[in-house]
Amino acid sequence: METDFSEFDAIATYFKDLTAQGGVALGIGDDAALLNTSADHQLVVATDTIVESVHFPPQATAEQIATRALCVNLSDMAAMGAKPRWFTLALTLPSAKANAQWLEGFSRGLAAVAGQYDIALIGGDTTAGPMTISLTLLAEVPSSDALQRSGAKAGDALYVTGTLGDGAAALEMINSRDSTHSERLLTRFYQPKPQVDAGIKLRTIASACIDISDGLIADLGHLCQASGVRSNIQTDLLPIHRELHQLWPQRALEWALSGGDDYQLCFAVPQPYQQTVDQWIEAGDLDATLVGQILAPDNTNNLVIVDGDISTDFKRGFDHFSH
Amino acid sequence: METDFSEFDAIATYFKDLTAQGGVALGIGDDAALLNTSADHQLVVATDTIVESVHFPPQATAEQIATRALCVNLSDMAAMGAKPRWFTLALTLPSAKANAQWLEGFSRGLAAVAGQYDIALIGGDTTAGPMTISLTLLAEVPSSDALQRSGAKAGDALYVTGTLGDGAAALEMINSRDSTHSERLLTRFYQPKPQVDAGIKLRTIASACIDISDGLIADLGHLCQASGVRSNIQTDLLPIHRELHQLWPQRALEWALSGGDDYQLCFAVPQPYQQTVDQWIEAGDLDATLVGQILAPDNTNNLVIVDGDISTDFKRGFDHFSH
Repeated sequence: METDFSEFDAIATYFKDLTAQGGVALGIGDDAALLNTSADHQLVVATDTIVESVHFPPQATAEQIATRALCVNLSDMAAMGAKPRWFTLALTLPSAKANAQWLEGFSRGLAAVAGQYDIALIGGDTTAGPMTISLTLLAEVPSSDALQRSGAKAGDALYVTGTLGDGAAALEMINSRDSTHSERLLTRFYQPKPQVDAGIKLRTIASACIDISDGLIADLGHLCQASGVRSNIQTDLLPIHRELHQLWPQRALEWALSGGDDYQLCFAVPQPYQQTVDQWIEAGDLDATLVGQILAPDNTNNLVIVDGDISTDFKRGFDHFSH
Repeated sequence: METDFSEFDAIATYFKDLTAQGGVALGIGDDAALLNTSADHQLVVATDTIVESVHFPPQATAEQIATRALCVNLSDMAAMGAKPRWFTLALTLPSAKANAQWLEGFSRGLAAVAGQYDIALIGGDTTAGPMTISLTLLAEVPSSDALQRSGAKAGDALYVTGTLGDGAAALEMINSRDSTHSERLLTRFYQPKPQVDAGIKLRTIASACIDISDGLIADLGHLCQASGVRSNIQTDLLPIHRELHQLWPQRALEWALSGGDDYQLCFAVPQPYQQTVDQWIEAGDLDATLVGQILAPDNTNNLVIVDGDISTDFKRGFDHFSH
């Protein structure tokens, strides 16, 4: 139980029955919930918590914690193709940090990201206790246009945005504390770039979409499960930054496949739209890469096949920070 | 700073600038935020966090923690006159509690309250760490009908719902662990009854409303500040349960005035509507009591006067639980 205490297990297992009520177009189990709040659009809601020593190291600055918390939450909205609008903040702080300096830094970090994505803080609660930061984001999407995990069909092409493995590489760099330093990776970790514009662009194009927070294989597995399909990834197509190949040649591929913390989008595109997507990519209007295809379901549990090899068993490595 | 690290100080001081964006009808500083999500109604959003040993004692059961967390949050919605619809859960749990028994109990508690108020859990996040429970509630209210802290005018009558002081008395009972036991107070603490129906009933009647979570004087002070008025409370009118007078004769009045944790509503009613409210009360359709009146502002800082005595200085006593 301890090692599996994640969003998927606990919420889906113990709280799923609580979701069956009016106005809920999509409840627990996707990147965010969809609510019917108006005739022409839906409200998209997601909550995410980050905890010291689990999601960020104790040495992180207040500003870094704030930017990371908000960017990670925005990634869920990107995965739904939604336009982020508002957020609430639940901030629990130990007395050592509940001072003007820390709070000003935290506020500065929030303001930087909020300004960039044009979202407003609408309320919150601050309490004394061990540091925990929980954000609830609210976004809007035209009714029926939201991207979901379900919807992928056999024959769809599979794409990912940006580059993969950077989140895991940044974790390794931060944890190891050796001389390896990359400003790019540090920024990737503390201010991952949520693919909000890509999500909005893909609204009426992609058949299914998910954000890659737990690693490509794990999250693509969730997409396949929700869609009732399988998929194949071609490792030679995976977008991996040359820096990873240089610094960690033995681990770059593993991190790209199962490292997690990348906050990129993985999406499926039906054949009629593939040319449109490829043109966007070529024109520089969409930072994405074709990495595989959606396959018909079979009667095995192999949802994600790597290079056609069904025996591949990449496990997600979740790194906790050491105190 | 440590003793003042509350919602009012930190959010208003450090994060207020983050709220100025489109679609926000009412941002930080009331019981909840108001968002313009549709032409005919507004979305009401509030986030509240409860932390072990601060908001509930370590011996509280999972079910008790869940009911208290949800009821406390619903009280904010009641204070806005809103109809609660949905909520998200951010649950941080130490490994000792991340087991099926605890989670089933917690889920049972949530389900009991959610069923009673017809609200749906729409998502959440569970993380490993020190126990912290943060809920974000979403409610709806017809546009322009939401009750706010501002709006009270000199001459308005002042009412409170239910009885006062029970929250503080329950805290005393739980903390002292002597032989004093009241099932009524225990229920009041772990399942306070949010005044949702009263709030909805008062939508077009009350000129201002706030929920009493920090004590009558403190919260009425916030209402007066937001409304730019003063107020007078008549102590002989305060609704205090006879049990409090019997068990704690020396402290009942102080708790009613400044004990906190009552989750009742305090609201102002303009003269033309007072008869309506009094008739509801007489007919048993509204559980409320007239306790004072709204006064014109003066150039002092005495927002809340008790029995006409401006020298009264009741301080709110916030009890932390001992480990």
